[in-house]
Amino acid sequence: MKLAISGKGGVGKTTIASALIKVLARNEGTVYAIDADPDACLAASIGVPDDDAFNLKPVVEMREAIRSKTGTGAFYSLNPKLDDFIDDYSYKLGNIRFFRMGDPKKGGSECYCRENTFLNALITSLLLDQKDTVIMDMGAGIEHLSRGTARGVDMMLVVVEPGRNSVNTAKQVERMAKDLGIPKIGVIANKIRSESEKQFIAKNFPDDLILGYIKFSEAIWANAMEPSPAVEMDKELLAEMEKVCHIILREVGGKSN
Amino acid sequence: MKLAISGKGGVGKTTIASALIKVLARNEGTVYAIDADPDACLAASIGVPDDDAFNLKPVVEMREAIRSKTGTGAFYSLNPKLDDFIDDYSYKLGNIRFFRMGDPKKGGSECYCRENTFLNALITSLLLDQKDTVIMDMGAGIEHLSRGTARGVDMMLVVVEPGRNSVNTAKQVERMAKDLGIPKIGVIANKIRSESEKQFIAKNFPDDLILGYIKFSEAIWANAMEPSPAVEMDKELLAEMEKVCHIILREVGGKSN
Repeated sequence: MKLAISGKGGVGKTTIASALIKVLARNEGTVYAIDADPDACLAASIGVPDDDAFNLKPVVEMREAIRSKTGTGAFYSLNPKLDDFIDDYSYKLGNIRFFRMGDPKKGGSECYCRENTFLNALITSLLLDQKDTVIMDMGAGIEHLSRGTARGVDMMLVVVEPGRNSVNTAKQVERMAKDLGIPKIGVIANKIRSESEKQFIAKNFPDDLILGYIKFSEAIWANAMEPSPAVEMDKELLAEMEKVCHIILREVGGKSN
Repeated sequence: MKLAISGKGGVGKTTIASALIKVLARNEGTVYAIDADPDACLAASIGVPDDDAFNLKPVVEMREAIRSKTGTGAFYSLNPKLDDFIDDYSYKLGNIRFFRMGDPKKGGSECYCRENTFLNALITSLLLDQKDTVIMDMGAGIEHLSRGTARGVDMMLVVVEPGRNSVNTAKQVERMAKDLGIPKIGVIANKIRSESEKQFIAKNFPDDLILGYIKFSEAIWANAMEPSPAVEMDKELLAEMEKVCHIILREVGGKSN
């Protein structure tokens, strides 16, 4: 099962992604968690120490390594050496294998097209096959969709908050995910403080698109100014994401289905 | 004077940009306002009607038009026909001339590299010269900096909210803006609710980098679920941005300096 998490900047993509990663790692076994945002913060959010995240080789460097090992650069030529590569380019945290897309760049050096292209090849390859659980935390906005980075996922999750801008972005994401042929789309409403905020989301999307309503968390808000995310993830968030996770598994089927 | 506004997704870049555009249009005359975010919402925020924004030709199409008119594609060959082009590709709203970067794309069609490259050529060209006031609202995160889209601005403004993630992004922006040779950088602290939030920002940046602290606005929050932004911009925000504007003008010099 392959999932991508998208949405307007600031809606809580990374928070939702981290909670979903934790829930899936508990229920489904190994989860490949990929930070696909150049302005990255997934590592810290799932508990990878800063130094380890910094020292982790980015997946974009994998292509050259594969080429030098196989002569072709194609993922299938790697078999049965897949596991070595995964070990080499991921950080292991219980059932979670964390990958990061690319290195920080110098100002004016280049775009992230190469990273996005390789990531697309990686997730559609045999390296991470249909039996595996893969979650990608995408960059803010819609450019990853015009690039088609997440083409090949089974479901595009779009996080929205109660506001017209994030709803408009979600509608763009929905349109573009259809262009990409992504079979399923689901909306996760985040930071809900009141019934009227819930109704605002409900009237903007068909019922069957909405996977869940996540309450605004005072605990997460209070933690935002701490030097690093809380080690223990918010219990209420995890419980709510457990329900969202069940719906996702029903829609696209996990290992346990 | 040319300014770019950047920062992590969700910090309020577009709100700050719109207020600054209004203040500058009142005090400095013509302001060229450019939406450089593929996930755009500056038009609505400054009051350009949706249909007019949708029908406006994007600046990326200007290159072909210039080529067919001049044979070279270079901006300087246009002289003295500049004004025709500006009229053709901008929406006039009082002293504001609004431009948008590109059209919405199909999923999987292409990146926004071409748009970013052209935008950089546009702002560094004679078309919008040093006497003009130009404000670009950049996309969320840092890729526009690795692309160097805003190379050529006099000052990079970074919006932060009281949280470690937006502060980390701002520090990346600062580093990359220096790589680009942008002469000045300024931090605008947004959504400040308390003295401790103000202190959090203050301890993360040198004093002379911080241009102002903008209070969290209940009015803007309440308006977020309305179909479109309030026609009248929040008076307190405008008053606070007036002060920020004075500091910016002192740092980089506007027409009135």
